[in-house]
Amino acid sequence: MTDSNAADRALDVVCVGNAIVDVLAQTADDVIEQHGMVKGTMALIDADQAEALYAAMPQGVETSGGSAGNTAAGLASLGAQCAFIGKVRDDQLGDIFAHDIRAVGAEFVTPAATDGPPTARCLILITPDAQRTMNTFLGASVNLGADDIDEDLIARAQVTYLEGYLWDRDEAKAAFQKAAELAHKHSRMVSLSLSDPFCVDRHRESFRALISDHVDILFANEDEIMSLYEVENFDDALQHVRQDCRIAALTRSEKGAVVVSGDEVHVVDAEPVSAVVDTTGAGDQFAAGFLHGYTRGDDLATCAQIGAITAAEVIDHVGPRPQVSLAELVSARLAG
Amino acid sequence: MTDSNAADRALDVVCVGNAIVDVLAQTADDVIEQHGMVKGTMALIDADQAEALYAAMPQGVETSGGSAGNTAAGLASLGAQCAFIGKVRDDQLGDIFAHDIRAVGAEFVTPAATDGPPTARCLILITPDAQRTMNTFLGASVNLGADDIDEDLIARAQVTYLEGYLWDRDEAKAAFQKAAELAHKHSRMVSLSLSDPFCVDRHRESFRALISDHVDILFANEDEIMSLYEVENFDDALQHVRQDCRIAALTRSEKGAVVVSGDEVHVVDAEPVSAVVDTTGAGDQFAAGFLHGYTRGDDLATCAQIGAITAAEVIDHVGPRPQVSLAELVSARLAG
Repeated sequence: MTDSNAADRALDVVCVGNAIVDVLAQTADDVIEQHGMVKGTMALIDADQAEALYAAMPQGVETSGGSAGNTAAGLASLGAQCAFIGKVRDDQLGDIFAHDIRAVGAEFVTPAATDGPPTARCLILITPDAQRTMNTFLGASVNLGADDIDEDLIARAQVTYLEGYLWDRDEAKAAFQKAAELAHKHSRMVSLSLSDPFCVDRHRESFRALISDHVDILFANEDEIMSLYEVENFDDALQHVRQDCRIAALTRSEKGAVVVSGDEVHVVDAEPVSAVVDTTGAGDQFAAGFLHGYTRGDDLATCAQIGAITAAEVIDHVGPRPQVSLAELVSARLAG
Repeated sequence: MTDSNAADRALDVVCVGNAIVDVLAQTADDVIEQHGMVKGTMALIDADQAEALYAAMPQGVETSGGSAGNTAAGLASLGAQCAFIGKVRDDQLGDIFAHDIRAVGAEFVTPAATDGPPTARCLILITPDAQRTMNTFLGASVNLGADDIDEDLIARAQVTYLEGYLWDRDEAKAAFQKAAELAHKHSRMVSLSLSDPFCVDRHRESFRALISDHVDILFANEDEIMSLYEVENFDDALQHVRQDCRIAALTRSEKGAVVVSGDEVHVVDAEPVSAVVDTTGAGDQFAAGFLHGYTRGDDLATCAQIGAITAAEVIDHVGPRPQVSLAELVSARLAG
């Protein structure tokens, strides 16, 4: 392992998000309907709802997750220098989260909460079509606040990457805004992932203001970008976003990705996937691949191609983080 | 889910063992040597050793484990009526263990410890050859004692199945002996898995006495049975065990299994495996398949064949418990 606590190390990306342990279980389609879930989306649940849903779930597998945490793990697997900011509790799941993010080589120094709710967990139901439907009990991660944003860490990173889910809580939103302001104060770039169409619904106006004022690199999938601009088709959303944002990387599942930056537009195919097993983390890994390319100076088309490769890797197994060295995978694919 | 707490339900098998959550990570071969481990075996470690090893391990996946717990999960997946006796702490990993064993339909009513060490965990390193090397911190499971053996539960089950690992601790050994005595008091059968060649080394004389006095169905792999009788080849071990034990089911990895019961001997081939990914739990699932056949009245050759099918299923993915309905898998394979 690398020394992940070298406090003067230059960083490619610092990722800020909810620190979550995933509980993944494979289920039939009817379970999603019975519990009033919307397939493919994320719902916030409280402690009681989490307990009731867990009791109804089949046996699961636990693995560190969280959107920005998954991106940090992907970046580390790509060989990037990165850090993660997020809040766990000092409990068993918190130990697992902290272990896993450090084990991949990401710097993680946010202190664990010593009281309050337990470490966040996300109950993820994987249906036979490989879609994941997520139910998040935010737990300790809601205690992430502006004080947890370390100016030095932000200043050291080329890009500060923020997950949209943070916008759901006022404290985390304050942390988010502080991180974005510090990044620009130090002439660094700010990147945002829209996270989820429902998350966009909840915060449409403030997201649009944020994007046009503060976001340099936006990640969104088709549903999210259409929801953001309240339009009926992808191309309309594309025309909107190119006015608003320096770089937008828009993912479209098997239809590939579109990257737009002013007059520059690239349409990149999806990578073939041997077996579509679990799409959890695909968007997070696309962002990891794209940002890795971007921070090492690749052109935008190559950035999107790397994103497509890293997203494809995570789709063919259960769990949201890579199971192979992405650095080796990407260099083999780009060479081949 | 079925109602797993119906207190008067007839049971096929009650499994008694250490209640453990596994932490599985894929590593290179040299990590095994660096930490002085013996590949393919289980070592007991204390809390400090567990912390140090975990810090050196790559990111992992957490999943409920424990030898007899895995067998109970396999039996439930086969449609058998079963229960598990084992000790967790009232902590997050304990909740996960209890959830998972109940979610598959096994009855689990052993009360969680409210103080003392945390729920047991087993740090499992999976090398590229799919072998698992296990390091167990027994934690709360050492508090399993004779008081946790419920006479009613034992009396309701055709077979009481015990893992050899219990023999490592005096309290658990007392629980083990009580379970065996109660089973025979109620004219039920006692089954033992030898668990590990080092476990056999630690307890050779008492295991031999136990087997000849109390065990009706013995499970062992080639290394374990040769260690038990201190012989150099499998056939010598086979001649010993057929004198000692009513039924012995001996597994030999890709060479299949040999079942011996007095003059009756069956040699059954291993099932083909699509990809050998992780052998964790293969022996546990062989026992599940065999005992399912046995308790529903199949002949011994069929019992071994079912064991081969259920062992093969668990080898082709990471984790020690089945990922498909074993009932459907076995009925399709036996029909085909």
